[in-house]
Parts: sequence; C-alpha cells; structure tokens
Amino acid sequence: MKIGLAQINITVGDLEGNLARSVAAVEKAAGQGADLVVLPEMTVPGYPPRDILFDSSFVEAVYQATADLARQLKDLPPVIAGSLVPGDHQPYEHPGLYNAAVLLRGGEVEFLAAKRLLPGYDVFYEPRWFLPGPPSAPFELGGKKIGVIVCEDMWDEGYPVHPGAELFEAGAELLVCISASPYRRKVIDNRLHHARRQGGAMVYVNLCGATDELIFDGQSFALNAKGEVIAQLAAFEEEARVIDLDRDPGKKERVQMTEEEEVFQALSLGLREFVNKNGLKRAFLGLSGGIDSALVAAIAADAIGPENVTGVAIPSRYSDERSTSSAKQLAENLGIGFETVPLEGIHQAAEEALGGLLEGGTTAENVQARLRAMILMSFVNSHGGLLLNTSNKTELSLGYSTLYGDMAGGICPIADLTKPQVFQLAKWVNRSREIIPSFILERPPSAELKEDQVDPFDYPVISPQVEALVLANQSSAAMRISEHKRWQFGVILKVSEKAFGSGRMIPITRR
Amino acid sequence: MKIGLAQINITVGDLEGNLARSVAAVEKAAGQGADLVVLPEMTVPGYPPRDILFDSSFVEAVYQATADLARQLKDLPPVIAGSLVPGDHQPYEHPGLYNAAVLLRGGEVEFLAAKRLLPGYDVFYEPRWFLPGPPSAPFELGGKKIGVIVCEDMWDEGYPVHPGAELFEAGAELLVCISASPYRRKVIDNRLHHARRQGGAMVYVNLCGATDELIFDGQSFALNAKGEVIAQLAAFEEEARVIDLDRDPGKKERVQMTEEEEVFQALSLGLREFVNKNGLKRAFLGLSGGIDSALVAAIAADAIGPENVTGVAIPSRYSDERSTSSAKQLAENLGIGFETVPLEGIHQAAEEALGGLLEGGTTAENVQARLRAMILMSFVNSHGGLLLNTSNKTELSLGYSTLYGDMAGGICPIADLTKPQVFQLAKWVNRSREIIPSFILERPPSAELKEDQVDPFDYPVISPQVEALVLANQSSAAMRISEHKRWQFGVILKVSEKAFGSGRMIPITRR
Repeated sequence: MKIGLAQINITVGDLEGNLARSVAAVEKAAGQGADLVVLPEMTVPGYPPRDILFDSSFVEAVYQATADLARQLKDLPPVIAGSLVPGDHQPYEHPGLYNAAVLLRGGEVEFLAAKRLLPGYDVFYEPRWFLPGPPSAPFELGGKKIGVIVCEDMWDEGYPVHPGAELFEAGAELLVCISASPYRRKVIDNRLHHARRQGGAMVYVNLCGATDELIFDGQSFALNAKGEVIAQLAAFEEEARVIDLDRDPGKKERVQMTEEEEVFQALSLGLREFVNKNGLKRAFLGLSGGIDSALVAAIAADAIGPENVTGVAIPSRYSDERSTSSAKQLAENLGIGFETVPLEGIHQAAEEALGGLLEGGTTAENVQARLRAMILMSFVNSHGGLLLNTSNKTELSLGYSTLYGDMAGGICPIADLTKPQVFQLAKWVNRSREIIPSFILERPPSAELKEDQVDPFDYPVISPQVEALVLANQSSAAMRISEHKRWQFGVILKVSEKAFGSGRMIPITRR
Repeated sequence: MKIGLAQINITVGDLEGNLARSVAAVEKAAGQGADLVVLPEMTVPGYPPRDILFDSSFVEAVYQATADLARQLKDLPPVIAGSLVPGDHQPYEHPGLYNAAVLLRGGEVEFLAAKRLLPGYDVFYEPRWFLPGPPSAPFELGGKKIGVIVCEDMWDEGYPVHPGAELFEAGAELLVCISASPYRRKVIDNRLHHARRQGGAMVYVNLCGATDELIFDGQSFALNAKGEVIAQLAAFEEEARVIDLDRDPGKKERVQMTEEEEVFQALSLGLREFVNKNGLKRAFLGLSGGIDSALVAAIAADAIGPENVTGVAIPSRYSDERSTSSAKQLAENLGIGFETVPLEGIHQAAEEALGGLLEGGTTAENVQARLRAMILMSFVNSHGGLLLNTSNKTELSLGYSTLYGDMAGGICPIADLTKPQVFQLAKWVNRSREIIPSFILERPPSAELKEDQVDPFDYPVISPQVEALVLANQSSAAMRISEHKRWQFGVILKVSEKAFGSGRMIPITRR
C-alpha cells in the first residue's frame, strides 16, 4: 500500500482555500501512485477555530464544504481528512461537535473516528466545543485494516482510555493519526515517544503553518512496526509525500536541526503566517541598538523579506550614539529599511506640558517609551502593516516594560524567549558572518531611558528562575503585579511548553 | 430548621482572608440561631482561580486551609462550604480536581458532593481543571434530608444528567445550591427559572464581589416547595441572613431594581473590587466632554469615592470649548478631581518630528489619541492608581478606536454597554438632578480628532445589529479586522450575555 502524507497549510475559516489546498495535495499524491492520502486534523475548518464553533452557520458551512470536498475528490484515491461531525448529544450552551476523521471515498463522506481525548490544558480548550468521541473500529482498504485516531488520542498517558492500543487489539495493521500539534522546542522527540507507545506501524500527519500564537511545524512521519522512523517530512514547510509501506526502507536517520535553527525557523514561520494570512505585507519595529530588537529584525527579514521590514531608530538624549549607528549597521546588514526620528523635540514638549508629573520615579522614563510607541504606530498607520513588539519573556514576566510603550505591537516574535535564549539565538544569526554588530551583542542590556541606565537584573541568574515559575504555573510578587500588563499584550509566538497568552489563564485580581 | 445564607465576598488565592470572612459570617448566623450555614461555591480558594489550579502547591494549601476552616468552626453549627477535593483520576496535564461542596462539622471536613455539570461556555472553562463529580446522595441533618448541588448543576437543561431532580427522587426534602454565578442583566430571573425546575424547596447561595471581568451579584434566595421566593438577599452586597424553613412566610415580593440601577450598581461593584482587591486606591480618566467618559466618571465616583477619582481634560485644536467646560462642570457635579493639560504643544512637536507621515488618512488623528494616553498614564505613573478606559461596546466591536490611544486603560467599565445603553445609563444618572451636563447628553458623538468631526455611525441602528452578531458569535468584516485590537484590550466588566474578553475566544487570523 502506498500512502500519501499531506501536511498542508490551512487557514481558519477559509473553507474554499482549505478545499483547494487539499485537492491540490491529493492530486499530487495520486500522481505519485498513492492508494490513500492523509490530511491533517480539522482540514476543512482550519485549526483552531475556537469560538467560531459556537456559530451554527459556520458549522453548517463546514459540513457542506466537507461534502463538497468529497465530491471534488471523487475520482481520486480515498482520503482521510479532518472535519466536524455532529456529536451524539448537545449539552447546554455547547456546540456538541466531534473533532472527527472522515474518509472521503467515491464522492461520499464516511465517518471514521472522533477524537476521544480532548485536551483542555495550556493552549487547548477542546472540551469547550467538542464531545469525546466513541470507540472506533479499524476500516478496511485494499485488504489492510487501518485504525484512525486524532492528535491527542496519541498522548494517552494518564487517560483512562487508550484509543491507539484498542485499535491495534481490534486488528489494525496500521494506525493513522491526523494531527494539529503546535510547535514547542524539540517537540518531535515527544511526538515520537508517544507514537512508539502505540505499539505498531503508524502514519502521523501534522498541520503546517500558523494561527496567531500557534505554530504548526509539520514534521509528519511514518514508523514501521518496530517503531523505527521510515520517513520524516519537512519542518516548517508544506509537503506531500508518498510512502510505500510494503517496501520498508528500514530506519532512516532523522533530519536534525540545531535547537537554535529550529526555534528561528519556527518564529520566522509564525511571523510570516501572521503577516500574510492577515493581509498585512509590511512590518515596522523600533531598532534601539539592543539585542532584542536586533533579533526581531533578523527574524522579520527572514520571515517576510527585508524589503518589507523597516527599522526605526528613535534616539533620545540618553541614547549612546553607538546605539543608533549599530542599529543602522544592522539594518544595512539585513537589507531592511531604516528610518531615524529624534525624540528630543517631542520629549521636551511633553516635559513642558506635564511639568511636575515627571519629577522622580519612572514616569519620566515611561513617557519616552510611550512617545516611541506613538512614533512607531505613525509609521504603521501611514504605510500599513503592523508593529512588531520586541519584548522578551524575562522582562515580560517581571513587568520590566512600559504599557502602551515598549509593550506595544500586534505580534511578539520573541516574547516566549528568555533573555539568555535571545542571546543564544542572536549568536546563531551571526553563525556565518556578522549580521548583528558586535556592539549590540556585547553591551550590557539597557533601556536607555535615563543617564547611565542598565537593566537591574542578572539575567543569566534570574531568567531560568522566572522561567521555572512560569512552567510550574506559579508567580513571584513581581509577576503578580504585572499580570495586568500581560493581559493587554499582543500575540506571542509560542515556542516553549508554557508561553504567556491563551495557554496561561491567570486572574489579575488575586492574593 | 433555621438555615443561614451567607453570601460573602472572597478573593482568589486569599486563603487566610477567605477563612476569616467565612468564620465571621458563620458566627453571625450562629448568633441568629442557625442550625446550618451555607457559604458560596469555592469559598476557600476564591472564584475563579483558573490556571492557578495547575499549581499543585496552591491546591495543597487549599486542602490545608479547608481542614483549618473546619477546625475553626468546630464549636459552631454545621457549614456547607465550597472547596477543592481530589477527583477519582488525573488525566494527562489535568489537575484532576472536584469543584466540591463539603460539610464542616465537629472540626472535620466531610465530602458532600462535587459539581457534576462543568460549564465550558462563555467565561467558563471548568473542564480544564475539574472532573465531573459522581452522583451524590442527600445527607441528614436534624432529621431532614438535604441534597447538595453546585452552581451549573442547577442549569441542567440539555445535559444528560439532572443532579437536583435525582436528589429529590432520592428523598431530599431540601436542595442546597452553592454558587458563584456571574452577573448579567436580569440574571436573577434566569436563576429563579432554573431553581424552580428542580422540583422542590431550595436554598441558593451566591458569591458577592468581583474578580476581574466577573461581577458576582449575590441575590441569594430561598424557595418553598411551591417554588415561591420566601427570601431574597441583597444585590451587590455581602449579607448573612438566617431563614426559618419551618415557618414559611409565603411568597415575598421580590425586590425589583430598574435595569439601569442594576447595571450601574453592578459596574460600580466590579470597578470597586478591581481597585480595592488590587490595592490601587486611585483612578484617572480622560474627560473629553463626551457621553462615554461622563458615564465612566459617574460610575467611578460611586465605586471608589469622588475623592479618589481624577478627570483629565486634554483639549486640542479641534476641541469645542464647551467640551472642556462641560467636563469641568461634570467633575464639579461629581466632586471628583479635575485637571487640564492642553495638547497643542506636544501635538505640534509630534507634527514637526513626524512630518509627512501625518498627511492624510487617520495617522494624524491616531497621534492625538496616543498622546492623550501618554498624558493620562503620566498621571497614573506619578500618583499611582490606574487608568479607566472609556470605550463602549459598539465602538469596540467596530474597531472605531485607537490602539494605545483611547483603547488604553487597565479596566473598561462600559465596554460591555452598547452606545444606546450608555445613553440610557447616563440619563439614569441624571434621574434626580443634572449631574451630566446637558451639552454632553445632547451633542452628536464625536472623537474631535479633526475639524467638524462626528462619529460616522447611526448608533441607534448599528448598535443593536452589531450586538446581535456578538451574541451569535458572529463577526462582520469590520469586527474581524479589529480583532487584534480587542486582543490587547483591558479587563471588560461583563454585564451582558456575551462580552468581549475571556468569554469570547476568537482567532485574529481567519477568513
């Protein structure tokens, strides 16, 4: 049996586009002789549609589109796709849906299996919309018994039911898992661990692309019955590949990226997707001459092309002149646009208007950060596009940042990287030639909001401490009093096991 | 049997404070001869603790505090309280908890019942942390069989199980429901509808207070077996009251507030709680001379006392001089502080710095809104406290607002009111004397960001249309492209069935 693994890039709610991509991938796999093609979880509606699932007209449109997809694929090999199917009951204020795998064959939609294990942790809220599916049986194709599971069904440790093991016990010779599994550092190791626990030959097809915070890395794979990886698809790219399961090539060396390359590519994909899928094209960011904005600029140049990125330096009376010259050098090295707007005139006018309010404390510092945000947003409003936030996870955790100032920005590419991880990635950017000037890499971190200021943290010590608290769903006093700031933050691209954002739902008001 | 209904105000995570309030309420009810005292859902941890429940050290502390509470209440009548109890299993990455009702009697904690119906819609995400409880049996006290349910168990329409009906079938003579039910307009009618469906005498005790978006209105009640309201506790205030169930006074007239008074009091409580529980004391807001900021000022003066509120007028070259004089008059009428900071100097400096960027389009308008936010935040940073946002739900839905400008503010008191509802409430504020000057009430809505500008909406027509879409979890094109703005918005006090905020989880990236 030849099976096509199609890790396509779908968009939430874009039923027409998702169908077109599905058909194109199936046609390609059919051209390579596939007897069966596997698409990712929620192929038709896109993932995650979240509360759009409470809109019954959307759900109805997904049913129609699924039937339409089956008709479009009528003369092609059978296809396993992800879609919605009505569940067996509908609780109060619940859509009552199954997150289902369907077989599209001969122009018809056949229900195969519904996700039985519904994750409700971290960025997952699936019990909100879905009902746990009933047990399913393997189906037959070309004399082969195939069991089908959906994503979390494979992560069955600790759950009372074990969908994959049950299907193998029921005679399945192959287990197919359709998935929309978000990227985290080295997540592929974890996926392989869980796949091998299922106990037989397996094909795993993951989504590729991104929706807001969530980056889907693809990296679909096939395992033989010994649990050896016999095929692995690309990371962070769409791919459709046909594998002949009757010709086991034996264990393949897995493609191994360094952690730095993997994270950089993940962030680049996440940013590119946010810009493209929202039709934004251009991006602006403040280039302070610091390490954070330098890394964001490098990611953005890779993600959407340097010609679509503009760095804006806004030097103040407290800026080291090497900050601006390094920012300019960085922009040249990356090939991105570069603009300079001196802060002094507006800063003086603000001082005149605000007078005594600015004496002492951090008010005078915050004013500068907010004037910078206003200037940056003027570029966005005037040229279109979006503002890239340049905060890192350590300062965001500690609240060392100004609301409506340096916390501004619609998307936050490095806000799930601790400060040491920012340095690590910045050094990787410079792996073959100096892109980020050495002054930026070597200077002590500073917000440059007053004379001779440096950040009041020993980052290599405090960053891992804070990160450990975040991972344990705990908070220090500084983290608690800055919860309201994070509530008003942009979209954070998730690359760790626990990012701020929708995966961390902590009240502001608490003791 | 005399039963004490104690609708107390608890704080998430404040175990010590929650215990002290519980003990005080039980002592008071005991002094009035109560044989049994009922406290609200999640009395010990506070509600909703959300992802703090993933912190096992917190859960352990709640167990300890519950045992401690039982010991403190040893010599008092038995108490039904809400707390956490370990569930019967622990799925992958799930706290595996019961949201439980416990009986504190003779210094011991006895498990009574766990919430069986776990809401996952709107602002509820309970399947994330809790397991559905098993069926429970009535317990005996003073020869009376009492069944106990928790909050959503009473809203059992459409669910496959009916906890209240089952308890009555099992011989319960009285049903006790402990609850933490958030306020929405006229929610008491809905609660009474569901209580009466249970089929017998009932005591319902609700939380009083607020946590972030959620306002808990109290309004606890008792029904006789005929479903008549025989007692109803205060709205928006803590209260402990003892009812003699053996002396049925018959149907009591329910206290009826007007919808306007109810919503105003709800918002006032929500704001007061956010300020007090976060230790903030003072609040600032921009007073534009428009209806939205006028209403927020009135709510704030009521909530935290006029002496703790300061309105700041920031007139620009486009401001009608009556805007500022009306704002000043409003401040005098309310007795709040009033400051004026002219925008012109900073505005001119910004124009000089930004030059061509400001030509045409909305950039020049947005700059003014952002400079205003910077000025307002300078008051907050200098004096402490927080900035009150003054956006209404209609403009928030349509994205007619400036990110980091008029969208700034930690809490948003009227962002769940449509523009017509803002007018309705403002007129109610003026019910006995003119507090909001007539110029503010009568002028056409305007952002005053350019010459002769008025809002480009027919609010009485568009507001209900947009609200209907929000309620149906649908979005117009304008709503979709402003989703990223709402993502970065402050805490919205919820008073409708569907507010923006944690009850509406819609992706930014979609088609």
